[in-house]
Amino acid sequence: MSRIFNFYAGPATLPETILTEAAKELVDFKDAGMSIMEASHRSKAYDDVHSQAILDIRNLYNVPDNFNILFLQGGASSQFFMIPMNLFGDGDAADYINTGAWTEKAIKEAQILGKNINIIASAKDTNFDRIPRDYKITNNAKYLYITSNNTIAGTQYHSFPETNGVPLVIDASSDIFSYQIDWKNIGILFAGAQKNAGPAGVTIVIIRKDLCETKNDSIPTMLRYSTHADKNSLFNTPPVFNIYMVGLNLKWLKSIGGIQAIQEQNQKKASMIYDVIDGSDGYYKGHAQKNSRSLMNITFNLKSPELETEFVAGSIKQNLIGLKGHRSVGGIRASIYNAMPVEGCEKLVDFMKNFMKNN
Amino acid sequence: MSRIFNFYAGPATLPETILTEAAKELVDFKDAGMSIMEASHRSKAYDDVHSQAILDIRNLYNVPDNFNILFLQGGASSQFFMIPMNLFGDGDAADYINTGAWTEKAIKEAQILGKNINIIASAKDTNFDRIPRDYKITNNAKYLYITSNNTIAGTQYHSFPETNGVPLVIDASSDIFSYQIDWKNIGILFAGAQKNAGPAGVTIVIIRKDLCETKNDSIPTMLRYSTHADKNSLFNTPPVFNIYMVGLNLKWLKSIGGIQAIQEQNQKKASMIYDVIDGSDGYYKGHAQKNSRSLMNITFNLKSPELETEFVAGSIKQNLIGLKGHRSVGGIRASIYNAMPVEGCEKLVDFMKNFMKNN
Repeated sequence: MSRIFNFYAGPATLPETILTEAAKELVDFKDAGMSIMEASHRSKAYDDVHSQAILDIRNLYNVPDNFNILFLQGGASSQFFMIPMNLFGDGDAADYINTGAWTEKAIKEAQILGKNINIIASAKDTNFDRIPRDYKITNNAKYLYITSNNTIAGTQYHSFPETNGVPLVIDASSDIFSYQIDWKNIGILFAGAQKNAGPAGVTIVIIRKDLCETKNDSIPTMLRYSTHADKNSLFNTPPVFNIYMVGLNLKWLKSIGGIQAIQEQNQKKASMIYDVIDGSDGYYKGHAQKNSRSLMNITFNLKSPELETEFVAGSIKQNLIGLKGHRSVGGIRASIYNAMPVEGCEKLVDFMKNFMKNN
Repeated sequence: MSRIFNFYAGPATLPETILTEAAKELVDFKDAGMSIMEASHRSKAYDDVHSQAILDIRNLYNVPDNFNILFLQGGASSQFFMIPMNLFGDGDAADYINTGAWTEKAIKEAQILGKNINIIASAKDTNFDRIPRDYKITNNAKYLYITSNNTIAGTQYHSFPETNGVPLVIDASSDIFSYQIDWKNIGILFAGAQKNAGPAGVTIVIIRKDLCETKNDSIPTMLRYSTHADKNSLFNTPPVFNIYMVGLNLKWLKSIGGIQAIQEQNQKKASMIYDVIDGSDGYYKGHAQKNSRSLMNITFNLKSPELETEFVAGSIKQNLIGLKGHRSVGGIRASIYNAMPVEGCEKLVDFMKNFMKNN
């Protein structure tokens, strides 16, 4: 079968070239006589892969020297509790801006731990169709937590909040490596790999070094940032193959021009689809408010759920899969992460135009 | 380069056939037009992989119906704290038998959580060269924790303790799927995949259903067994590709005759090497006491560290890698998990005999 265009929200499409490269060396990695999956995490072969991936993140993403770059397990979901567990001291409070289901999960985990958190803004009243702009950061907040891109509603921050020295903690699971970052206000930026960075099974945590100092020695060793920072993410066996794939993905990103190039391509890809929505005279109704639109997940509705079902069924026949929206928003969602080729968006645009003409 | 024989303790060798199979379908999984790595964890394609892997574990390993089979992340190291965190109620105590570095890490994590644990036996006084046989299980202990196979010292339980109803908790990271299990006394058996079950990045947790009921609602959602049991390990995105590889490994195990067949092969492989040690008139000195010898990790010393260095250097020239012992025992360690072919052990035996003759 020819290659499909995969618009799923994650795990998501990967660059075809890195799959081909991985397949080619899967049995025999660089003439080692074995797979990278079989290499000891203490071996030179793996160490090269591990170090290069970290170096490529630092260089491509312009990560300053006062940040550690960690590879952890347990998904972004494990960061929801590790962050308050590690960062709170006695009497501390932290701020959260609620932009959807993923922030709500993070809020819930902080509350399970009994932490004092303030939800300083929320877009819940309008079904998360926007990024809130009016809020006041609490004096002495330990951090301000945001979700930079919201896969379900299709909203995205286009600039990060000014925080007056309060460290920003950013769940960037669905838009890491998709645009250039100003690290000035950031304390932690983390992402599960499976949308924009590689296959599921590894979480990238970029954390300011001073925030790695755990104050609470009743935290299990594996749950302390300091453990992984001190051992360069080799305290226990890392997910070797997953990190290798992240490395191939970074190499691909470098080869096409880095973050600046992908940022421009992402803007172009998203514009193509939003232009169809905006030019459809209400046939397609975008869910997100215009100034909060995501470049990664484009959400829209048609006139009726029946028509939406027909849209999805028709798209599958064109080898465009994963376009059904999340149940909480309904309609259609096109996830067009870094690795979605322009060609995939062109095919989607053609399909949208034809569908509108014929239905 | 021809295929190497990899005696590393883990990540470890995998069956060559499953690497070939994975390579073949890495870019296009069963004509889906995409890789299994790109498949949504909510898709039919992945669901089949996930369900089949669980079913194969249940059937191959004879896991009774009153156990859940979970795929978690964070390695065995995360089980060290999840077990006491989930299993202890107020006033509870648990027993541990200390057979080496891995048990010691588990003990440490229980202590960090402030749990009341009893080390009812330890082999520390003889550098962990044996499985202790004299101990008394504490009345009403919540569980008895053991490490079934000890990779560093090369010791292994050949029968599990009789516990009079106290559930056994077994770290089987280095011998899961290598022999048939009597589940009668077992509460939890867990293993990081990277030695005997697949690539690094997924932990198999086989847990009695009644032990999944978490009593403490201050535990983060991701750290509760109940979360993963209720959602069949799909609460958050699982490590899709790693579970797929575990599935291929189980399929391979089935194809060669299942656990009984591999158990016989493991006995044969280990005997070949122990026979050389025992017949060497003291040239090779086994570290483990004979009745505690591991079938998975064979540890031995030569007359001097210099000779051991020569042994390792010579073995590499024969394409036998990873034979250097762990620093705490020194000497040589041959890890011969399920996937090490008989041929690899034959080559090692030949090398050992020739080395003894020539040095």
